[in-house]
Amino acid sequence: MSINPPISDNQTVILGKETPLKLDCGVTLEAINMAYCTYGTLNADKSNAILICHALTGDQFAASRQPVTGKNGWWEIMIGPGKVLDTDKYFIVCSNVLGGCMGTTGPSDIDPKTGKPYGLKFPIITIGDMVRAQAMLQDYLEIESWFSVIGGSMGGMQTLQWASAYPERVFSAIPIACAARHSAQNIAFHEVGRQAVMADPNWLGGDYYASDKKPTAGLAVARMAAHVTYLSEAALHRKFGRNLQDRDNLTYGFDADFQVESYLRYQGINFVDRFDANSYLYITRAMDYFDLVEDHGGALAKAFEGAKTRFCVVSFTSDWLFPTSENKDIVQALIAAAANVSFVEVETDKGHDAFLLDTPEMFKTINGFLQSSAKSRGLLS
Amino acid sequence: MSINPPISDNQTVILGKETPLKLDCGVTLEAINMAYCTYGTLNADKSNAILICHALTGDQFAASRQPVTGKNGWWEIMIGPGKVLDTDKYFIVCSNVLGGCMGTTGPSDIDPKTGKPYGLKFPIITIGDMVRAQAMLQDYLEIESWFSVIGGSMGGMQTLQWASAYPERVFSAIPIACAARHSAQNIAFHEVGRQAVMADPNWLGGDYYASDKKPTAGLAVARMAAHVTYLSEAALHRKFGRNLQDRDNLTYGFDADFQVESYLRYQGINFVDRFDANSYLYITRAMDYFDLVEDHGGALAKAFEGAKTRFCVVSFTSDWLFPTSENKDIVQALIAAAANVSFVEVETDKGHDAFLLDTPEMFKTINGFLQSSAKSRGLLS
Repeated sequence: MSINPPISDNQTVILGKETPLKLDCGVTLEAINMAYCTYGTLNADKSNAILICHALTGDQFAASRQPVTGKNGWWEIMIGPGKVLDTDKYFIVCSNVLGGCMGTTGPSDIDPKTGKPYGLKFPIITIGDMVRAQAMLQDYLEIESWFSVIGGSMGGMQTLQWASAYPERVFSAIPIACAARHSAQNIAFHEVGRQAVMADPNWLGGDYYASDKKPTAGLAVARMAAHVTYLSEAALHRKFGRNLQDRDNLTYGFDADFQVESYLRYQGINFVDRFDANSYLYITRAMDYFDLVEDHGGALAKAFEGAKTRFCVVSFTSDWLFPTSENKDIVQALIAAAANVSFVEVETDKGHDAFLLDTPEMFKTINGFLQSSAKSRGLLS
Repeated sequence: MSINPPISDNQTVILGKETPLKLDCGVTLEAINMAYCTYGTLNADKSNAILICHALTGDQFAASRQPVTGKNGWWEIMIGPGKVLDTDKYFIVCSNVLGGCMGTTGPSDIDPKTGKPYGLKFPIITIGDMVRAQAMLQDYLEIESWFSVIGGSMGGMQTLQWASAYPERVFSAIPIACAARHSAQNIAFHEVGRQAVMADPNWLGGDYYASDKKPTAGLAVARMAAHVTYLSEAALHRKFGRNLQDRDNLTYGFDADFQVESYLRYQGINFVDRFDANSYLYITRAMDYFDLVEDHGGALAKAFEGAKTRFCVVSFTSDWLFPTSENKDIVQALIAAAANVSFVEVETDKGHDAFLLDTPEMFKTINGFLQSSAKSRGLLS
């Protein structure tokens, strides 16, 4: 084993001071904070950099201690010496998305116009805006082209957006468990979550920052509803089934009788400490708005026309939030665009969350793809 | 066409004054109100009565005007002269479930011990208790055996419970889109709904009846979350897709941009006027507790041993809440119990709600089953 390569602690850089970020909604953000972590070492010709795009409730702490929870990074299973995203070989960058709440500019930050937190005065942002901001970070790091851009779920949407908007800046792209446009069912689930937040009287129309209370109850409900969609029916059945908290007895009450109930409550309660309710609204909205098909006049293939980027699309058999059929739509468009694409549907009963879990077939697939891409880029002899 | 047979308006009877209802939780309810509607005419030997069991948010107004909403009954598509549940031939009974809020005793009723509404002092009820209460209504109506018991979703659970607990009182049974036990995923979705209600500060621990506010915001969120599960992804896609309210423009805000959002909000807002939040808690709990397998030592077939009841089990291809696999478990148990059972998986993209909608293959299946059952019972020459 190698000695662990350097991990940079959380860094924040101010971007866009000279060329401000123009958003899809028409608003311009004069300057933004961009918070990110890096793992591994950038090589001399800056050709070994991988950008990790995080999911809805993720953050830049992909492989380092999350400062609020004190827990391990959310993708440590993928990142490290000898792992799939091998920090002995690659320089890994993971930034908090625009609209987020872990250091990159979002609705909880101070609006320079008022001196108060933005709240709902923060402009609506899109996946395109998130990627534009990441491109400003790429410029700042003086990396001409990412060796790879990778992400699951909303991270996969960003990966697709990267390949579509900046093909010359992406050598390879690995969108996992995502879609080229958010489905009606997924918009519906997001809307339930937003309404749960907005129904909480402590939300105060988004201006809860100066209050001593936060819309934690509403946000916890939103998280619980979303969390059910991240797991498969089979995974819930295997993990919990109808197992009771008290092995023998129903309580004939509304306490958490079933293990699945206490698990969900735990997911809800723990989430609210580390996540801003308004960020949840903005980021879910960005996902809802994502529609690479509509952006290209109804023909997804046009999103990738002339692409030289190599693609590896990964889906999971038990993912009902971003089912294989939606991932296949991406693959078919890439084929129609004559792109270099491989596609693997990984057999797993873990549901959408499989991209975060110990999923050996996914590791093997991405590892193989990165190896061949590295050879092709001259990173490996 | 025949002249419309008599429709009895909503009636309420007090049951259990002499033999009180003993609940599964151990509590005894001294006397209960039972509200019901009837359609058609009971024949001389009382052999043509059909009991309809309603679903979670249904009521006794299966084929008559709902007094709160002023809308048509929820199953008018099935009930009437010449329809599948033919009021020229059958005497149809539909009662509000125990724990409900449309006249049958539930948490919004006065607790005789305190003179105030029960709220959370109402005992936890089960599907078994609902059916026990319906059996008391059957006694009151002096109907020895139902020609048929039919229901979808929670109505299907009651149908199964009837056939298991009172086989000699059920000539035929038609459980639609249900399961012999509530799955972990379904318990999880119910728990999200309950937490949404309980998170509403107007819920007041269930004691909101004397207050001028009700937990409508929380209940609306619960309804929205549940409603997504009643539809299939395909139905949502077909009905709404990513269609915008304003045909041309995203608003870049949190108003209902997408038609699916405004549809869901409408479902939530309209629900709270006609439904009691505590009833929602109690009835979802009853569904979660339903487990005919566990009740019979892990062998579902034992639930139906020696059954003379004829069964027709119906499932829908696109129902992911009560998928065909769970309906097949019922069928297999019935076969193992040597019961007379037919099973049809109806091809439809309408999801769980298909049992409430214009689903011709379901009509045809149930119609055929009722015809042959009617012959077998000597109702038809």
